[in-house]
Amino acid sequence: MIVLFTDFGPADPYVGQLHAVLVREAPGVPVIDLLHTVPSFDIRAGAYLLPALAGEFPPGTIFVCVVDPGVGGPRRPLLVRAEGRVYVGPDNGLFEIVARRAGHAEVRVLTWRPPRLSASFHGRDLFAPVAALTARGISLESEPGNLSAPPHAPWPDDLPQIVYIDHYGNAMTGLRAAMVAADATLEVTGHRLPPARVYGDVGAGNAFWYENSIGLVEIAVNRGSAAEALGLRVGDEVAVLSAS
Amino acid sequence: MIVLFTDFGPADPYVGQLHAVLVREAPGVPVIDLLHTVPSFDIRAGAYLLPALAGEFPPGTIFVCVVDPGVGGPRRPLLVRAEGRVYVGPDNGLFEIVARRAGHAEVRVLTWRPPRLSASFHGRDLFAPVAALTARGISLESEPGNLSAPPHAPWPDDLPQIVYIDHYGNAMTGLRAAMVAADATLEVTGHRLPPARVYGDVGAGNAFWYENSIGLVEIAVNRGSAAEALGLRVGDEVAVLSAS
Amino acid sequence: MIVLFTDFGPADPYVGQLHAVLVREAPGVPVIDLLHTVPSFDIRAGAYLLPALAGEFPPGTIFVCVVDPGVGGPRRPLLVRAEGRVYVGPDNGLFEIVARRAGHAEVRVLTWRPPRLSASFHGRDLFAPVAALTARGISLESEPGNLSAPPHAPWPDDLPQIVYIDHYGNAMTGLRAAMVAADATLEVTGHRLPPARVYGDVGAGNAFWYENSIGLVEIAVNRGSAAEALGLRVGDEVAVLSAS
Repeated sequence: MIVLFTDFGPADPYVGQLHAVLVREAPGVPVIDLLHTVPSFDIRAGAYLLPALAGEFPPGTIFVCVVDPGVGGPRRPLLVRAEGRVYVGPDNGLFEIVARRAGHAEVRVLTWRPPRLSASFHGRDLFAPVAALTARGISLESEPGNLSAPPHAPWPDDLPQIVYIDHYGNAMTGLRAAMVAADATLEVTGHRLPPARVYGDVGAGNAFWYENSIGLVEIAVNRGSAAEALGLRVGDEVAVLSAS
Repeated sequence: MIVLFTDFGPADPYVGQLHAVLVREAPGVPVIDLLHTVPSFDIRAGAYLLPALAGEFPPGTIFVCVVDPGVGGPRRPLLVRAEGRVYVGPDNGLFEIVARRAGHAEVRVLTWRPPRLSASFHGRDLFAPVAALTARGISLESEPGNLSAPPHAPWPDDLPQIVYIDHYGNAMTGLRAAMVAADATLEVTGHRLPPARVYGDVGAGNAFWYENSIGLVEIAVNRGSAAEALGLRVGDEVAVLSAS
Repeated sequence: MIVLFTDFGPADPYVGQLHAVLVREAPGVPVIDLLHTVPSFDIRAGAYLLPALAGEFPPGTIFVCVVDPGVGGPRRPLLVRAEGRVYVGPDNGLFEIVARRAGHAEVRVLTWRPPRLSASFHGRDLFAPVAALTARGISLESEPGNLSAPPHAPWPDDLPQIVYIDHYGNAMTGLRAAMVAADATLEVTGHRLPPARVYGDVGAGNAFWYENSIGLVEIAVNRGSAAEALGLRVGDEVAVLSAS
């Protein structure tokens, strides 16, 4: 299975072009559009979302990961193996947290290049073909290497910031719920939020935080938009207050 | 064929997670993303859209239907058979109109549970697996039951309200066109609209109503946005005026 | 392979209905959602986007192309063959540039009609079935014909206007980069833009133009939105200034 994780947007022609390459180069291999709305150019938000989402997939899954504002520049293309999964994408910090949480990751710098490589769309021309050929069991030229330090490193193990806001207005953070006391209070944009298990446990219109279905601390409002009610944006800081 | 009908949004990671489950549990079965933009949490809008859209699909089609603000609470999971089609989803009113129009519907309360069930994402953990296993001919534990009364019941057979606004700005209502006189005038947000057959039958910028391609009364503007021109929102009342 | 190119939007139920027809009528044939966000009703923008995007696909590819504000009126349905690719859609100018660039195009007017044809959704009822049957090697009733003149013809070989704005805020023009001097300056909405090869070649926040991955002149801002920074909209004129 090949899984796509990008900031290409679901509406533009870029995702379709990826699929066209994958259908041609790896016919019959299922392709999943997991997320194409990583916040634009936001490598760090993507880095904390990726392991939470990838953890749902079995070993052998191949991820094409593209948040790549430096495309066409000197940043290197990578193939990373961690916990039995394979990740293909740019060496810009996007794989930092996946690799760190795995404990051990095998990092290969791809030296293979396709016959035709555009300057600005390596997702289509390099990463998708590499994923397709890897899915078919074909090994491509590469060298052992290490992950480059991400921008503004070091990054914490858990990121106390909002990394994604969904269309309901729910806000995912870069904090794993397992690292936060179940009865902690969360503070964001000046609001203090109690924990709850699910939406219906609080009254309609009330804000709370909970462990979402991929294990992250998420801020929500029952039958409403937390983003609107609390004025949330990607990058906003959240604080975990010890339970009273 | 498995068909998805949800309020999960086309851009968030929820749809991809459904597909991943379905590919794994029912490999080779086609999966159609019919609609992921049912108005958020709006069970009633979904209930009137569902039979109009489902009517296009042949017997044997399995629908995964999720508009589920009560997820994780006491509402029961259902498998409903009506007119040869199968519907899997929450017992919260979403199947009320499909069942009523079918005349007879077989309602099963699912007692089967998956090995792992998150509190907030039964679409991924329960409804998608049930659909996949059903597609493979596997029968799951269930009990006979009845649909619970939907919120704010009783609901009319046809809903004189806007239930969906598309990206052109066309507004679908919960009225079947077959129940409305072909020469009736429609009134919405203070505007009176004549009928037409298609867009090009009125001048550019003119508003009208017509029978859309799934049999519903729809409000449109030729080469323009009815939602903008007439100030329409989901939930707005429409009145059918007898033809003059 | 069947490729979809429409203004149906990625979020509405229209694309899913196309897929349902294609799965049923051409099971096993891969279907690619290339673009569903051609600017609404904008036949001309679509006409200049189509050859740039279609050029990536191999001979034999079948395109379902629907930007069709005149649906249900007298405009004719076409099947066009150009450079080994097949295009199915309305005779309203959408194929004008594909045919012109090919030099020679075989135009067939479809006289075949499906058993059921709605007034307003020929994408689902006519064009998708034609594509599916064509993919299966079935020849449908048609007559030789010619493309009708598009609205506001004649159209130039390259269109010095913005034809698409993506979710990053990058603006594609109807100009092929190969027809523009590599060191030319571009003028749009009162701003003069230098050329660059890729985003990272200019400072963050700087605007430039470049040859995008489908060969068009595109206006961008490194790690920002050109549409916001320069106030761009589809239809805005661009001027190519000779290099200094």
